[in-house]
Amino acid sequence: MADRTVYNPMRKVAIFGGTHGNELSGVVLVNHWLKHGEEIARPDIDVRPFITNPEAVEKCTRYIDTDLNRVFDPENLRKENKLNLSYEVKRAQYINSVFGPKGSDEAYDVILDLHNTTAHMGATLILENSRDDFTIQLFNYIKKCMAPLTCSVLLNEHPQLKYATTRSIAKHPVGVEVGPQPQSIIRADVLDKMRMVVKYALDFLKDFNEGKEFPPCNLEVYKVLENVAYPRKENGDIAAVIHKNLQDQDWKELNPGEPIFSTLDGKTITYEGECAVHPTFVNEAAYYEKNQAFTITQKILLTAQSVRCINSK
Amino acid sequence: MADRTVYNPMRKVAIFGGTHGNELSGVVLVNHWLKHGEEIARPDIDVRPFITNPEAVEKCTRYIDTDLNRVFDPENLRKENKLNLSYEVKRAQYINSVFGPKGSDEAYDVILDLHNTTAHMGATLILENSRDDFTIQLFNYIKKCMAPLTCSVLLNEHPQLKYATTRSIAKHPVGVEVGPQPQSIIRADVLDKMRMVVKYALDFLKDFNEGKEFPPCNLEVYKVLENVAYPRKENGDIAAVIHKNLQDQDWKELNPGEPIFSTLDGKTITYEGECAVHPTFVNEAAYYEKNQAFTITQKILLTAQSVRCINSK
Ligand SMILES: [Zn+2]
Ligand SMILES: [Zn+2]
Repeated sequence: MADRTVYNPMRKVAIFGGTHGNELSGVVLVNHWLKHGEEIARPDIDVRPFITNPEAVEKCTRYIDTDLNRVFDPENLRKENKLNLSYEVKRAQYINSVFGPKGSDEAYDVILDLHNTTAHMGATLILENSRDDFTIQLFNYIKKCMAPLTCSVLLNEHPQLKYATTRSIAKHPVGVEVGPQPQSIIRADVLDKMRMVVKYALDFLKDFNEGKEFPPCNLEVYKVLENVAYPRKENGDIAAVIHKNLQDQDWKELNPGEPIFSTLDGKTITYEGECAVHPTFVNEAAYYEKNQAFTITQKILLTAQSVRCINSK
Repeated sequence: MADRTVYNPMRKVAIFGGTHGNELSGVVLVNHWLKHGEEIARPDIDVRPFITNPEAVEKCTRYIDTDLNRVFDPENLRKENKLNLSYEVKRAQYINSVFGPKGSDEAYDVILDLHNTTAHMGATLILENSRDDFTIQLFNYIKKCMAPLTCSVLLNEHPQLKYATTRSIAKHPVGVEVGPQPQSIIRADVLDKMRMVVKYALDFLKDFNEGKEFPPCNLEVYKVLENVAYPRKENGDIAAVIHKNLQDQDWKELNPGEPIFSTLDGKTITYEGECAVHPTFVNEAAYYEKNQAFTITQKILLTAQSVRCINSK
């Protein structure tokens, strides 16, 4: 008999929009579902659409004081002295009280957190834990349903580069990142892809809760290796821009010696790594302030055991 | 003998970047040229690169208090009581004192104002006056040099929709609008196109000052007819998004009965005008707050007389 992981049924599911207030696909979908919930209803699952950063949404900006999607660490979630806290840390504590507490039995089972990127990443799922068989199975299911559309999986469990996401309060956090879409606009094609990802995720949860067993699977993922910074001048100004050969080439192979930046006086800067990598988040608007021109990843294969619901009928 | 318009030589030329602080091609180019001016130097022309809204650039936002590119009207330019003025109105008065005064003999001859759009407009020149033979000749020259790349001309002299631009203090205002580019990022392809437009504009001015006569020409332009608003719900939320068949189709013909919006519950809204039009600024991020989903235009042909410099050697 094959190895199998069993889980309790997934009853508490949230769909977060507006974690970044200018990433409008999730904002628009969550606001729509708050009024018209039929599309996301599934039997015996409490599916809760929720705007996580309403003030940032109101102002159509990424955040008010600090990036909400970076403050769900134990230190911020525990901070007292409410008067001195940033808007987002206060908000994180509130979200944690409603959908967490993070790491507890009461925490939500699954949180789908909806984001957009200016990078040409297509539909992307972000995995936070390579040993979470349930989430790997979920991603495998979504990826198969999305075909022939591409649905890539980004694995971020890098010891320094992993960050404390809003979704991380769930037992099974699911990052959904769809691009390319400029900040502050809504593209119909991007909206459609995001909507499909959510539909397939909920369909999987329904099937799972109803007792369907998902056999062992392999999942191709892009594992975060490193962030590449912009070349800067002495005064801090950007000295080069993403080279046109790299622009819009997220997930494609980048080899040593290939161009990555162009300077304003016409020089080309090449990739000087040791081996081929797969860039992603290429020219993401929000990452200029983080000084990330792109992220390099390595393609690896994860395997998941069969998963099944413990007390299915 | 053919009709000819004669002008004084064009000695005072400015290149404005950062009129909208999150439209980065112009910001980056102007900052580069402030330190490395050789590229924009032309004999006997004072070419002055200038950041018009430095605080908005610093914050990487469109504006601080109000849209700088809408306040160069006589009323705002004359306002006193400096304490109560918005940052941008103060700034407009300062810019007008340096590069104007608007409408005076001392005003700069030509101002190239560099903008980006999230719309798929390619390289676009914006004309404010259909009887300005000099600017029509300039645009005709740039357009020919840009080929085979498209360079479209938008004519805005609509009695209600024309607005008081930053460049309007010059005798010959030139709007340069290049897209698609998300706000807050720099794309190499968009940067290159903007740089080409500026180069050809300066080359024209040099040739003109040196006595070259430009023969009569015809210029195809898209004349602004109307702005189309987003359908809204009662609470003000957007009820529909740009239809996928219209997205990225700037300048293409749109016929009555063709789709323009999709509602979130899957309905299609069609264009109900009387005749074919050419949409532009389709899904421009900055126009959500102005409630403009796109602008419709009509293709017309302008003619310009021959132009020549009055006192060329
Ligand atoms: Zn985001
Ligand atoms: Zn602009």
